[in-house]
Amino acid sequence: MTSTLKGIAASDGIAIAKAYMLVDPDLSFDKKTITDVDAESARLEKALDASKAELKLIKEKAAENLGDEEAEVFEAHLTILSDPELIGNIEDKIKNDKVNAEQATKEVTDNFITMFESMTDNAYMQERAADIRDVTKRVMSHLLGVDLPNPALIDSEVVIVAHDLTPSDTAQLDRRYVKGFITDIGGRTSHSAIMSRTLEIPAIVGSEKATSSAKAGDMLIIDGLEGDAIIDPSDDQVKEYQQKAADFKAQKAEWDKLKDEKTVSKDGVHFDLAANIGTPDDLQGVIDNGGEAVGLFRSEFLYMNASELPTEDEQFEAYKKAVEGMNGKQVVVRTMDIGGDKELPYLPLPEEMNPFLGYRAIRISLDRTDLFRTQLRALLRASAFGKLAIMFPMIATVAEFKKARAIYDDERQKMVDAGEKVGDIQVGMMMEIPAAAIIADKLAKYVDFFSIGTNDLIQYSFAADRGNEKVSYLYQPYNPSLLRLIKRTIDASHAEGKWTGMCGEMAGDQTAVPILMGLGLDEFSMSATSILKTRSLMKKLDTNDMKKLAERAVTDAETNDDVIKMVNEAVGK
Amino acid sequence: MTSTLKGIAASDGIAIAKAYMLVDPDLSFDKKTITDVDAESARLEKALDASKAELKLIKEKAAENLGDEEAEVFEAHLTILSDPELIGNIEDKIKNDKVNAEQATKEVTDNFITMFESMTDNAYMQERAADIRDVTKRVMSHLLGVDLPNPALIDSEVVIVAHDLTPSDTAQLDRRYVKGFITDIGGRTSHSAIMSRTLEIPAIVGSEKATSSAKAGDMLIIDGLEGDAIIDPSDDQVKEYQQKAADFKAQKAEWDKLKDEKTVSKDGVHFDLAANIGTPDDLQGVIDNGGEAVGLFRSEFLYMNASELPTEDEQFEAYKKAVEGMNGKQVVVRTMDIGGDKELPYLPLPEEMNPFLGYRAIRISLDRTDLFRTQLRALLRASAFGKLAIMFPMIATVAEFKKARAIYDDERQKMVDAGEKVGDIQVGMMMEIPAAAIIADKLAKYVDFFSIGTNDLIQYSFAADRGNEKVSYLYQPYNPSLLRLIKRTIDASHAEGKWTGMCGEMAGDQTAVPILMGLGLDEFSMSATSILKTRSLMKKLDTNDMKKLAERAVTDAETNDDVIKMVNEAVGK
Repeated sequence: MTSTLKGIAASDGIAIAKAYMLVDPDLSFDKKTITDVDAESARLEKALDASKAELKLIKEKAAENLGDEEAEVFEAHLTILSDPELIGNIEDKIKNDKVNAEQATKEVTDNFITMFESMTDNAYMQERAADIRDVTKRVMSHLLGVDLPNPALIDSEVVIVAHDLTPSDTAQLDRRYVKGFITDIGGRTSHSAIMSRTLEIPAIVGSEKATSSAKAGDMLIIDGLEGDAIIDPSDDQVKEYQQKAADFKAQKAEWDKLKDEKTVSKDGVHFDLAANIGTPDDLQGVIDNGGEAVGLFRSEFLYMNASELPTEDEQFEAYKKAVEGMNGKQVVVRTMDIGGDKELPYLPLPEEMNPFLGYRAIRISLDRTDLFRTQLRALLRASAFGKLAIMFPMIATVAEFKKARAIYDDERQKMVDAGEKVGDIQVGMMMEIPAAAIIADKLAKYVDFFSIGTNDLIQYSFAADRGNEKVSYLYQPYNPSLLRLIKRTIDASHAEGKWTGMCGEMAGDQTAVPILMGLGLDEFSMSATSILKTRSLMKKLDTNDMKKLAERAVTDAETNDDVIKMVNEAVGK
Repeated sequence: MTSTLKGIAASDGIAIAKAYMLVDPDLSFDKKTITDVDAESARLEKALDASKAELKLIKEKAAENLGDEEAEVFEAHLTILSDPELIGNIEDKIKNDKVNAEQATKEVTDNFITMFESMTDNAYMQERAADIRDVTKRVMSHLLGVDLPNPALIDSEVVIVAHDLTPSDTAQLDRRYVKGFITDIGGRTSHSAIMSRTLEIPAIVGSEKATSSAKAGDMLIIDGLEGDAIIDPSDDQVKEYQQKAADFKAQKAEWDKLKDEKTVSKDGVHFDLAANIGTPDDLQGVIDNGGEAVGLFRSEFLYMNASELPTEDEQFEAYKKAVEGMNGKQVVVRTMDIGGDKELPYLPLPEEMNPFLGYRAIRISLDRTDLFRTQLRALLRASAFGKLAIMFPMIATVAEFKKARAIYDDERQKMVDAGEKVGDIQVGMMMEIPAAAIIADKLAKYVDFFSIGTNDLIQYSFAADRGNEKVSYLYQPYNPSLLRLIKRTIDASHAEGKWTGMCGEMAGDQTAVPILMGLGLDEFSMSATSILKTRSLMKKLDTNDMKKLAERAVTDAETNDDVIKMVNEAVGK
């Protein structure tokens, strides 16, 4: 029977395919006393063999479709299944304690997991614990005769249905077959939602009951434009959405024509449309989508994808590659934004009760100036090879910015004195802490530019963790309160002859863009895949009308909903 | 040799006495194999007997000096030492494993602690785990022949030196003998600092190295006015501080004369000086210190000091007692502010990554309207017995306030319809989230008053957990950015003919008060013990001068330090 679901539209497009349930099966069992030890050992051996065969297949598929790196994790799993100590302990337990294979497996693997997990300062051991957990699940599934989902083995077109998608889940997805996905939890800025946009897979998140409503093999329509899903649709509905998919494809083709155009409003005002990137490898996507700059290079990926601190040379190479790849267009590098939810195995940070309100980003850089200076030197050296800008994350006060800038000036002077070549670098800051936005007029005297980080600015302004489902209703990008902080930032920068960009989720949000144009935002930096759509939207809008809209939103509106209504009336939806 | 320490002045006054080191001794030991089981068992028995004797003494002292409730915890410790299962297990381990008593004690108690602690949803068992941990420490100290500090046994005048003071430490302090304290860590809003003001004990927190600098028995001067400590002072220094102590005493006597006076500035402008309370028992302190109102009744104490949800009647009685006790003066009750760092054993809340940015206060009340309505009914009933006001904590948006107020209006109407008597109640909100302060002009249309909660407002504005030492430098109450939010709130309320109070730490801060007067704050609510000092300060200040000072702080200053300098210049320090 046809049923519908409503969720948060996470990634544009329409998908129509069969449901693939990426849901853990029930692996509960009863502890039993056994009498026939040999039979029980044979059961265990059979489950181990089946697990190994399955893992080999998954490994091959993963290597073929996703690359060797993704395949390696399964090699680690196979090694565990051949570990004589682990397997021997399980066999001994069956023999000595006369318990069923499930119980013996659980007890032994639990012990190993606890042991590895207790080594909290050893990232390698922590990973081993996660591996054993995964492998145990697989062995259990064979012991209990239930199917474990194996996303790497998908070989026909599907829509993934899951409670949530973890980074390791998404790493296993083969884009040729995965046409869309829908999850129970998550918001527009959750990991799964961001991944869906990067991969350009239509997706709905936060549907609350996708996993309880759909069954494996159900036909499923995912409308990532509206956030609607239909389970077991009628033929008419399938036809309707096939048409919608075709229309969307045509529209995308239209957008593609804008690739080499400048971004101008209907009345000829120019805006910069830039992209956010994590590594220099993302540059191709920026160029393919007609990006006019890189508005945010998240330098922490250099730190997070390494097993030790990246050297000055390693960093220099990455920044150089980025500015050279952009061929004269500006690349804004954010200095390392670790801490919060981003940990480095080789740089242990204190356990904190509220990590988002803790020791992170510029707070670490101003404390660990050795790391900060290394990064600044690498950036200064790279500036000789293209147009580079630097910004500091999590600046809360004028004093912090002046301190960070003084360290930068010092390193720059040293290099100039040594006769090294450095380019012209603009030095700005992320505007993502309410206290900073409120004093933007004073900060504007010292910065070259602001870049508004909306995800953090929203979470701090409303005192609501953006990852916490219980308070997700407070993620309110259109709330007039937030718009006032944005306006204040933009106005303050203009009063000092500086510019303001935005590199948060909101910069590519089609409801926010009209208001941001009206507020005079200079640069919009977003997922590369949102650029052409935004360029198309901007072409249709007159900045004088948008100024009036923005003025009303900031002055008259009381709530987030008020503003959405104003935009829909002004832009027509 | 004389040495000096600098810390944060936490509580006014001068103390001169010998140092009492409230520091855990080294209780480490080596695991040993023993041969003489009887001798080792005898060692254990001796340590147990010594521990019991000590605990009995402590219990008597505690009952005598601090009351039966504080003494009870030691009775619990004695019971543990007589538990045949626990002691039997230790004896067995000595006998069977041939290990020394220290090792046997550690292994067995660790097991019990782990077992109790794993029952995470059982507050009783959690407390038992803490008790066993405490008792084990005592037994170990006797086994190892080292002294454990026993603050309950202090019987001569001392200054406590500690890394930090926990709530259970402070519960054991006898005010007759404890003349002051100094800690390594903590800030002005830490538990130990707040306790020191409540107990009126001169104190310094955050000195960083008190425990490593002072030795037991060293003479120690604590200057809680300036945050200076002197170890082993010269005779001249002792004389100087004795004079300073006498001056301070005289000043306090002056202040006491202001008890029944109104609070007016030099130019005759009236301000309300109110107090913050946790329970109706705190009312005596408010009256003794000449409080003109209760600006904050933290109703969550009714919830936290109970083993189950307080009934409507229980709450009614507490609120009634408060309004009756204040005899016609206003009592502002904040509806329950649980969550964050305040947990209720009987109302499990979700584990959160950032509890301060999570499900707490009004967010819970709007979700669990059953609890909220019960509290509102109790408040409405109490309003017939005195002057009651209500405020909602953690309001971030106009929509939230309207929702909360609608529930209040509904309950009120039901009671009126039923013919029950309700008084005139002002309904306001805490201003403690940046997004709310920024849109204060809209909120002011719906509220009867604002009450600024500076501790939270600062922590969210600067995105810095106020309990996190690593970012404590961002607790900046004088930062012009924060002052602008305060000004915006006050101005917005006045524009709508409403009033604004402040119930955070800042309202009684002598550097902040001049600026707050200048900004036109209507009500200052603080620790009762700060009221007379503040009344005295206000008498000396002209509001026209303070307006100029506030204007400069808000417009010209760039940093927290700039403002401190401006205040010192204007008020003279």
